[in-house]
Amino acid sequence: MSSLSKTFYAVVAGVGSGTGRSVALRFAKAYPVVLLARHNDSYDGIVSEIQQQGGQAVGISADTSDPQSLSTAFETIKKEHPDKKLAAAIFNVSGGLTFKSFLELNVDDIDASHKANSRSFFNFAQNVIPQLLDSVDAAPPNPPTLLVTGATASVRGSARFGPFAAGKFAVRALSQSLAREFGPQGVHVAHAIIDGVIDIPRTQGYNVNEGKPDGKIAPDAIAESYWYLHTQHRSGFTQELDIRPYVEKF
Amino acid sequence: MSSLSKTFYAVVAGVGSGTGRSVALRFAKAYPVVLLARHNDSYDGIVSEIQQQGGQAVGISADTSDPQSLSTAFETIKKEHPDKKLAAAIFNVSGGLTFKSFLELNVDDIDASHKANSRSFFNFAQNVIPQLLDSVDAAPPNPPTLLVTGATASVRGSARFGPFAAGKFAVRALSQSLAREFGPQGVHVAHAIIDGVIDIPRTQGYNVNEGKPDGKIAPDAIAESYWYLHTQHRSGFTQELDIRPYVEKF
Amino acid sequence: MSSLSKTFYAVVAGVGSGTGRSVALRFAKAYPVVLLARHNDSYDGIVSEIQQQGGQAVGISADTSDPQSLSTAFETIKKEHPDKKLAAAIFNVSGGLTFKSFLELNVDDIDASHKANSRSFFNFAQNVIPQLLDSVDAAPPNPPTLLVTGATASVRGSARFGPFAAGKFAVRALSQSLAREFGPQGVHVAHAIIDGVIDIPRTQGYNVNEGKPDGKIAPDAIAESYWYLHTQHRSGFTQELDIRPYVEKF
Amino acid sequence: MSSLSKTFYAVVAGVGSGTGRSVALRFAKAYPVVLLARHNDSYDGIVSEIQQQGGQAVGISADTSDPQSLSTAFETIKKEHPDKKLAAAIFNVSGGLTFKSFLELNVDDIDASHKANSRSFFNFAQNVIPQLLDSVDAAPPNPPTLLVTGATASVRGSARFGPFAAGKFAVRALSQSLAREFGPQGVHVAHAIIDGVIDIPRTQGYNVNEGKPDGKIAPDAIAESYWYLHTQHRSGFTQELDIRPYVEKF
Repeated sequence: MSSLSKTFYAVVAGVGSGTGRSVALRFAKAYPVVLLARHNDSYDGIVSEIQQQGGQAVGISADTSDPQSLSTAFETIKKEHPDKKLAAAIFNVSGGLTFKSFLELNVDDIDASHKANSRSFFNFAQNVIPQLLDSVDAAPPNPPTLLVTGATASVRGSARFGPFAAGKFAVRALSQSLAREFGPQGVHVAHAIIDGVIDIPRTQGYNVNEGKPDGKIAPDAIAESYWYLHTQHRSGFTQELDIRPYVEKF
Repeated sequence: MSSLSKTFYAVVAGVGSGTGRSVALRFAKAYPVVLLARHNDSYDGIVSEIQQQGGQAVGISADTSDPQSLSTAFETIKKEHPDKKLAAAIFNVSGGLTFKSFLELNVDDIDASHKANSRSFFNFAQNVIPQLLDSVDAAPPNPPTLLVTGATASVRGSARFGPFAAGKFAVRALSQSLAREFGPQGVHVAHAIIDGVIDIPRTQGYNVNEGKPDGKIAPDAIAESYWYLHTQHRSGFTQELDIRPYVEKF
Repeated sequence: MSSLSKTFYAVVAGVGSGTGRSVALRFAKAYPVVLLARHNDSYDGIVSEIQQQGGQAVGISADTSDPQSLSTAFETIKKEHPDKKLAAAIFNVSGGLTFKSFLELNVDDIDASHKANSRSFFNFAQNVIPQLLDSVDAAPPNPPTLLVTGATASVRGSARFGPFAAGKFAVRALSQSLAREFGPQGVHVAHAIIDGVIDIPRTQGYNVNEGKPDGKIAPDAIAESYWYLHTQHRSGFTQELDIRPYVEKF
Repeated sequence: MSSLSKTFYAVVAGVGSGTGRSVALRFAKAYPVVLLARHNDSYDGIVSEIQQQGGQAVGISADTSDPQSLSTAFETIKKEHPDKKLAAAIFNVSGGLTFKSFLELNVDDIDASHKANSRSFFNFAQNVIPQLLDSVDAAPPNPPTLLVTGATASVRGSARFGPFAAGKFAVRALSQSLAREFGPQGVHVAHAIIDGVIDIPRTQGYNVNEGKPDGKIAPDAIAESYWYLHTQHRSGFTQELDIRPYVEKF
């Protein structure tokens, strides 16, 4: 554990069995991490894993779509880490995916996607941006970073993916706007377009890319990319990159 | 008034003193038009104008962000034009623009943009897509069309434009998704990126493009572009175009 | 024939059996047109067609990739239309398409695509931009226009389409640069992404879009779009649009 | 020096005082590196630097725009490293930049940009792709990688940047095409959009970003990004990323 861990912490919103878990494990090599999920069974196992590997982790139940729930969570974090500054915040929440004809949808579908995606990211950013700005003055070795998980649907509105794409496009818009406002103040905001199926328990049975080896994205590979983004020098920030399997059609 | 007017009608959501008015006047040369706005003072004058020019128009008060209000409006339209099919639907609603630092915003801002932009467009499309599909079978001279007004913020999340861009990006995502689902069924969905200040009473005092002549977009120019999109042959649909003054920096 | 024809003319580079022919026929309704192609058998038939319809047309053999050949052609045009100004110039030349593995190519392939696409467009623009600028002062009803035919490969480098895409991307780059330099001086430069198979004799046997009616783009539909672009008011120029069949996957 | 150095080597085309030098130094920590430049004074100093740091390096004079010159260089490399396979090839050549009005240019300008950019990259890729494919079978820890340096002009045709943007767009097209053809065969092709002024001796006097610290891109920061791209797992390849100073307007 680096000496960074005495001064800084990281927070990951949206953890479970995939990207969020891998990202938490990766950032826990350098920082105490706080895991946010709606239910404790999403983070309990990861907290244990991190602790077994000698890292520090705590899980907090919170609904990112609810400003009150999220600010309560950040108050808890403040008590947990009263003297630590925020080094990195990762927004990995998603939701509102419906693979239906537009004719079978109703207004709840577009609202659900808004809530899970853009509203949640907005709330998260409202909490972490002031902290990240505050960390800039502490001159950390890695510029304070806000990382956002996007998807193919962040840049492409496919048939039957309307509401989900609406939510993902909106998150991307916000991430650009935050990068442009807070980049010049020293905060690194980056958006990753995850353009493929992630290799997690839920996708085990999916037949993608003809079942070729590494045809699904290893969550650890995403986590390494996120860590790299976090370590970029401020003279060379990446705002957006894509990540996909070597065999993916695009 | 063409013979089209006996069989078809057009609807424009979001009329006032700018693009909506010009579009309504333009489409009224071919079709009876229905104008939707929250308040009757937004459409009363336009209805009169159209009638004075020998066209047919009716205004209906409706809140596009409210599914109930909007479906009531479409029931009224059904009574108004019981035998007519929908030739063209134009979504020109916008809202949620705040030119503030992200740090001065709160969750109401992202919700307001969602409501005014993506939720409203979703509701509007839910009402018009079934009608437009129904019109395909009537083999109109111009393929049934859904046109959507976008903005610079549809493709760029500028600093201090976060919530507005989120809403506009989301509308663009939906328009792509609808184009991909319903294009093959004969419905033309197109999105116009209006990349400049529109020349309307409200922007009279704006000093844009150094005050050069035609440095703001004439709403009538937008209306002509919309009419052209409506008349495109189905073998050559445009899904997206940009519109900006010749002197605009881009 | 409109009175425009007394003052202005149009030139189309790259005519044959498809887009170029349709565009020439369309613009010939308003202007005398000059057709450029390497061989006279590419334009002779079109010249006749236009004349039979009461229009004026002349064909000139020229190689757009060769600056000398092209400037000679424009000297011939000057003699043909000594008092006319240029209203519209359409660049419809293409070439360099090889559908081969990169491993089977050699340097001649990338050179050929450069020559046919970017070099040809550069040469063409070198000749027409000064004329179009000169036309601005004549205050024509339609702003002087330079239209450029692009393709799917203008925005996407597909496998096995490398050299062709390189040429098409390069043309798009130039068209943007010209739009940004000469738009503010009153010249309208627009780029059309033709995203589908065009319905011409050569593609007769192609099975595209499952053979559905209008599954290939009618060249006349492209021509109508070009004409529309030419007529846009300078307060609302389109720099880029896409054109594809309603049934095209995109 | 890792054990990788016994089996693999890297090649960097286009070295001098900036990105190429930093990339060479970075990759020399893991591999013997070959430096290509037209003149030996571009690489002599870097070769010395690498050797002083305990790395292996050799410089070869070659003109990437000339297929013969380049294939001779690769024959020399073969003699230099008869048993080594290619781990990474970096294309960092650029040229053809003219900041002039289009009206002041001539055909040599577009040809020069083609030669320096797309033709050079084409030639380079013709030499390295077969080698990179051959390396895939050796199952290196890092997938064989072809990295390409792009610029703002790779995605934006600004006024007065026409020929340069044409060349840069073309290189980007080729890089996409190669990624799509050879990614599935295990070769990682990535394109970096360097969106800012690089901090090199030549730009010392440039006043960019109001002279703020780190307002120019540190070449070492670019090199770190390239190294990271090289180390990505094949289940999560990045095809494109942008790199710019935190204070850059974009």
